[in-house]
Amino acid sequence: MRTVRLTKESTKDILENLLKRSPNNYGKFEAAVADILANVKEKGDEALFSYTKEFDKVEVTADTIRVTEAEIQEAYEAVDASLLEVIRKALVNIRSYHEKQRQNSWFTSTENGTMLGQKVTPLNRVGVYVPGGKAVYPSSVLMNIVPAKVAGVPHIVMTTPPGKDGKVNPSTLVAAKEAGADEIYKVGGAQAIGALAYGTASIPKVDKIVGPGNIFVALAKKAVYGHVSIDSIAGPSEILVLADETANPHYVAADLLSQAEHDEMASAILITTSTELAQNVEKEIDGYLKVLSRREIIEKSLENFGYILIAEDMDEAIDAANEIASEHMEIVTKNAFEVMMKVRNAGAIFIGEYSSEPLGDYFAGPNHVLPTNGTAKFFSALSVDDFIKKSSIVYYSRSALKEIHKDIIQFAISEQLTAHANSIAVRFEDEDKKEEP
Amino acid sequence: MRTVRLTKESTKDILENLLKRSPNNYGKFEAAVADILANVKEKGDEALFSYTKEFDKVEVTADTIRVTEAEIQEAYEAVDASLLEVIRKALVNIRSYHEKQRQNSWFTSTENGTMLGQKVTPLNRVGVYVPGGKAVYPSSVLMNIVPAKVAGVPHIVMTTPPGKDGKVNPSTLVAAKEAGADEIYKVGGAQAIGALAYGTASIPKVDKIVGPGNIFVALAKKAVYGHVSIDSIAGPSEILVLADETANPHYVAADLLSQAEHDEMASAILITTSTELAQNVEKEIDGYLKVLSRREIIEKSLENFGYILIAEDMDEAIDAANEIASEHMEIVTKNAFEVMMKVRNAGAIFIGEYSSEPLGDYFAGPNHVLPTNGTAKFFSALSVDDFIKKSSIVYYSRSALKEIHKDIIQFAISEQLTAHANSIAVRFEDEDKKEEP
Repeated sequence: MRTVRLTKESTKDILENLLKRSPNNYGKFEAAVADILANVKEKGDEALFSYTKEFDKVEVTADTIRVTEAEIQEAYEAVDASLLEVIRKALVNIRSYHEKQRQNSWFTSTENGTMLGQKVTPLNRVGVYVPGGKAVYPSSVLMNIVPAKVAGVPHIVMTTPPGKDGKVNPSTLVAAKEAGADEIYKVGGAQAIGALAYGTASIPKVDKIVGPGNIFVALAKKAVYGHVSIDSIAGPSEILVLADETANPHYVAADLLSQAEHDEMASAILITTSTELAQNVEKEIDGYLKVLSRREIIEKSLENFGYILIAEDMDEAIDAANEIASEHMEIVTKNAFEVMMKVRNAGAIFIGEYSSEPLGDYFAGPNHVLPTNGTAKFFSALSVDDFIKKSSIVYYSRSALKEIHKDIIQFAISEQLTAHANSIAVRFEDEDKKEEP
Repeated sequence: MRTVRLTKESTKDILENLLKRSPNNYGKFEAAVADILANVKEKGDEALFSYTKEFDKVEVTADTIRVTEAEIQEAYEAVDASLLEVIRKALVNIRSYHEKQRQNSWFTSTENGTMLGQKVTPLNRVGVYVPGGKAVYPSSVLMNIVPAKVAGVPHIVMTTPPGKDGKVNPSTLVAAKEAGADEIYKVGGAQAIGALAYGTASIPKVDKIVGPGNIFVALAKKAVYGHVSIDSIAGPSEILVLADETANPHYVAADLLSQAEHDEMASAILITTSTELAQNVEKEIDGYLKVLSRREIIEKSLENFGYILIAEDMDEAIDAANEIASEHMEIVTKNAFEVMMKVRNAGAIFIGEYSSEPLGDYFAGPNHVLPTNGTAKFFSALSVDDFIKKSSIVYYSRSALKEIHKDIIQFAISEQLTAHANSIAVRFEDEDKKEEP
């Protein structure tokens, strides 16, 4: 954790350091990922099974790749009843928040016979990638599936790498079932992304792929973008706490560490107008480090990407926060709502000293899949918006088109698109001829 | 133009043929584009000027790269007054349609002190790419700039390659000024995309790049995706006319040709339940070909990617149309509105025999930047949505957090994220300790 006086220069240096974590800088794996994708596209299931054997050390076949109802029942028996209850409580909140994101088709019309509108349709098939490995995040399963379900996507296909026993982690399966996954397949890595993008005999092609993953998964998603849609490319987690002298250093330090524990590339930043708070937060961090189980990860993350920035005043602090555009932002200041109004760039904004970031990871309802690595300048949280698309609707009556047909013809001719002009002209050629002197 | 009996097999073959036009299949130019981008990122203006000399045969400098107010005034003098009037009329419609796409920030709250919401913020800087060359499309300038302007983007930066005289086409400049571009630069190709993505001394970095371009521009946009945002990757234009025996073959043929004239990769498809209509449309096309100025392009486009598909009934026709997911779709049938309700996948839907596709290109108001190449299954028309982003808002009072804090702690611990659990626990540690027996 470095303490730095905030200036334009220091902000620029910090931004450069943070951007080192971007998946855009991992070009060296691109060729390997391209190979895997090409192989899956060409050989389908055969390639999938062979990569699963190579990378996950598990034999899957066309008969075992799809998770069965019996396996799901087994998972329910293995999961702690009280965790299941918490998952269900969280689901109520997550669904309720995402239901407010639903968008309606709309139209406007005139009596002269014009109707313009926008028709909202859910995507037909969505693929949700869930990482495997030691860390198991049922909350992430909920956050990726619920918005698709609320959007009305009829086919939600999940893929996740099997463990060495050939099984999927029970809490992952239970979360998937509770959230509403329709089909679950035991395959991970770039090969899973290839299967979802191109389809194989066992796994259906989807229209969009979402969900977090390692660098191979991220690069594979980027490579298939355009052929299918993807969510934004996720980087390591981030928190930025904007605090003044009214903040409780005990809480601020705990919140910074809650993101630093994610992985060594995670970033925790405090921007404050109070030198005293800065010092106290540092002390508190040292205290927590002695007791927290993920100490090694936290220490590396703080060393590489942790900052305490001292700002001259709150406006300067907010400007820097807008430049950094953090995934998570906590505002722990006087008049925190007023400060929020000045924040342009942040994935999620947590206001006040009891809105600790983990509240949003699990429970409050907003999605925890958020733009990282400065992309909050142009990307948003995963939402129902990601699982719908809109078709423009245009209806003009004969009289409505007649009124403006000469304007369209002139515009088309100015662009030398004579067949465009012709398609309007033919509809009025008889009467336009009569009009001519 | 091939006439084919519609079957699952023939639909599949047609889809495969159409997908050949995808920019995903132009990997051979990727290395050249990567070179240009790397050069612009490293050398900035110097690289820009040198590429502009190489590709556009024009010397630009830091003093001349930005279009001046005097050049814009000159453009106004060069443009036909009646075209300017048409541009202004079209702008009224385009603005009015896009204003209906505006989205509001929202929140919900409870008396226990929870507030959840979504804050909508426009992007700060947007880059609009406008192609140069012989074909000049002021309509495209309007369609790319207006939604950004309506969204409230404060800085709209346009780039377009200069002609050999070092100037930008006057109608392009006039359209840009009318639509509300803030800065205009004379640079094109992959180098312009690099400048917008990374920034140079002359050209500011933007948050998102939109606008059509050749294969170099498309690949460059794909390459910088993630570092900045981009619009969907545009392929060649497409029209699909869904018609029954009530359709006028004279109009249908004219509409098919209006898209075929765009370029040799464009696709025009008629799906009809009427063999008679199919035959008459073919005859009409032959008639038009004799008189249309872009005959050569049209003939090649029809030969490569033109189809007349005969369907058994309207449901089969609609299913195939949903599979093809065309950029533009015209419905010229009995009960056209009912047919529209069954259409899931199309960029824009034109209903009835007077809603000819060019009406949407220029005048009606909906955006003419639409998803191509089957991507209407998951992408939408360019819209105000492309120029905003959303931040989640979370506020919980002490008592609201207290009520659920143990659930969050349990969820976090089940994911082995102890620092997450800690950040909630520290807020209630004193009273939780008291509660213990």
